Amino acid sequence: MTTIPVTTAAKSYAVNIETGLLVRVGTELAKVWSPRQVAIVTDTNVGPLYAQQVRERLTAAGFRVTVLTVPAGESSKSWAQVMRLIDALSAAQLTRSDGVLALGGGVVGDLAGFVAAIYLRGIAFAQVPTSLLAQVDSSVGGKTAIDLPTGKNLVGSFYQPDVVLIDPQTLTTLPPRMLVEGYGEILKCAALVGSDFWALVQTVAQPADILAQAAPLIRHSIAFKARVVMADEKEGGQRQLLNFGHTIGHAVELWGRGRYMHGEAVAIGLVQVARLFAAQGLMPAELTNQLRERLMAVGLPVEFPVDLTTTDLLAAMHHDKKIHDQALTWVYLTAIGQPAMHAVPLANLATWIAPVTAK
Amino acid sequence: MTTIPVTTAAKSYAVNIETGLLVRVGTELAKVWSPRQVAIVTDTNVGPLYAQQVRERLTAAGFRVTVLTVPAGESSKSWAQVMRLIDALSAAQLTRSDGVLALGGGVVGDLAGFVAAIYLRGIAFAQVPTSLLAQVDSSVGGKTAIDLPTGKNLVGSFYQPDVVLIDPQTLTTLPPRMLVEGYGEILKCAALVGSDFWALVQTVAQPADILAQAAPLIRHSIAFKARVVMADEKEGGQRQLLNFGHTIGHAVELWGRGRYMHGEAVAIGLVQVARLFAAQGLMPAELTNQLRERLMAVGLPVEFPVDLTTTDLLAAMHHDKKIHDQALTWVYLTAIGQPAMHAVPLANLATWIAPVTAK
Repeated sequence: MTTIPVTTAAKSYAVNIETGLLVRVGTELAKVWSPRQVAIVTDTNVGPLYAQQVRERLTAAGFRVTVLTVPAGESSKSWAQVMRLIDALSAAQLTRSDGVLALGGGVVGDLAGFVAAIYLRGIAFAQVPTSLLAQVDSSVGGKTAIDLPTGKNLVGSFYQPDVVLIDPQTLTTLPPRMLVEGYGEILKCAALVGSDFWALVQTVAQPADILAQAAPLIRHSIAFKARVVMADEKEGGQRQLLNFGHTIGHAVELWGRGRYMHGEAVAIGLVQVARLFAAQGLMPAELTNQLRERLMAVGLPVEFPVDLTTTDLLAAMHHDKKIHDQALTWVYLTAIGQPAMHAVPLANLATWIAPVTAK
Repeated sequence: MTTIPVTTAAKSYAVNIETGLLVRVGTELAKVWSPRQVAIVTDTNVGPLYAQQVRERLTAAGFRVTVLTVPAGESSKSWAQVMRLIDALSAAQLTRSDGVLALGGGVVGDLAGFVAAIYLRGIAFAQVPTSLLAQVDSSVGGKTAIDLPTGKNLVGSFYQPDVVLIDPQTLTTLPPRMLVEGYGEILKCAALVGSDFWALVQTVAQPADILAQAAPLIRHSIAFKARVVMADEKEGGQRQLLNFGHTIGHAVELWGRGRYMHGEAVAIGLVQVARLFAAQGLMPAELTNQLRERLMAVGLPVEFPVDLTTTDLLAAMHHDKKIHDQALTWVYLTAIGQPAMHAVPLANLATWIAPVTAK
């Protein structure tokens, strides 16, 4: 088992990664939680595959278990599901000594984490992420959230889990498109880190390679993210680096209203921000091709959708949560492994992005 | 101006108390906040009295101001109002650099604080509490919350303000019943602290004395609460002392569904817990009379409502958020200024409270 320690101001916890770890989920959880009532939050995709098994392992380890299932998909990151889950925790009489376990992808983790953060002003929380995106991205950093009609993740909190248990074997049941989208975030990390990690992604030449290399890809990504989060828990400085590819990515995702998965939109964002910064003379032009090649190798999209207008793109960008002092801070690379930041006043944004949006 | 510093793991901030402080609210806020957009959250009672004045002072100090008004009363601590306020913040395009100012009593503070805690995963928050209860109680400690049908404050977060500005002059516009209920919490603090503070409450012989002594009563209460909160931000240990009178008080308040204000229910809780612990031989009998005298002097209720059955009381107690390991921890006094705690297993609760519930 690989253990990556994460230490924040709020608490310290471990991310444990091992193929087959799900079999030991009960005993692993018992290492950090005393016997208690545990509400497993899962969705209609993951629940039928794993909830019964996890329930049995937890029960065998001395926990009293309730399983709460939400509809699969981003639309569950809603007030309606928050209220439903909170009512269910209250009906099951969970107390401050009990806990919530997220079993599923990023949606389940974000939703269950937010519910754990606000129920009784916060009860214990643990994560068993089952999608590649959740394993590499949303399970480290303590971000929880739901969406509003005006944008993604506009409501939430920073709330750290007590433990994250990752079993790469769960990826074998993941739909191919979801496996590939998770790789979009991995490639972002690899480009920011460079060195061994960038060398590793050179070996991913087709979607099947993602599965074959899952364990090292996940380890590298989490180790990087943990370093960044430890340095900067609440996104004042270094954590902004994780937004590489996200300024355009988030806007495309918001505009698409479900057409693109998060990792797909990020893939477009990575290549287009590279094109943009190359056009502005801030990023070497060959990086655009390198990023494009690695992403296209697994079939990720890299071009703006043809029906996305500049007006719509700008409108979506204005909902970016990272707008600060009427400016948007972009992350770019001066070389693989060498990130940098550049703030653009909102007033200049249309002109700034013109090199990639002008047809 | 009296300044009481509060330091928690999350942040340090000041509680500033001064008669007439409201006139300087803009300049005081400008000491802790850079120029930014500020959403004032107030209610239909306080808004008409103070919102225009505060808006003007803030605008004069360089802030851009939006005023959001919720219906007065506990029923605004609801999901519906949270969603409405969040939508309003989003519509006004508040960013992570902006802030929420609570202008009102405990309901406004709890609701606005929770909204500030979860909008964009937390934006800046400041408080101008205008009721006595909010000034002495809910403005220190970082507790924010809304209610569920099954109980009060079941959803919320710990979220510290950047500053708390208290102007005792706002108490002159408070309905007499609300002034008196605030005194219920003050008397609780005085009994826990003893010494000078207990001597001070001996001079409160009628409701008008609360107003006359408001500034020192508020100062003593906040200084005590700040000490406790600094020692124990999240209610693991010492902070539990603040629950003196609240185990019964909360249950009576929940059962009454609006019949009793919080401070009134606490007054009943203080006298009845004293009776109970006197009957159990843990508290000197004369303390019951001392508490009763001080509370009755201002017209606060001290007896159980005649139509409250033991079954209903027990049922309401089972919703207590302080239930831990199937036990309820009671706070009592061995003397004025000498608090102690006593845990009672839920299984024994009916027997334990029988001395005060048996007719």
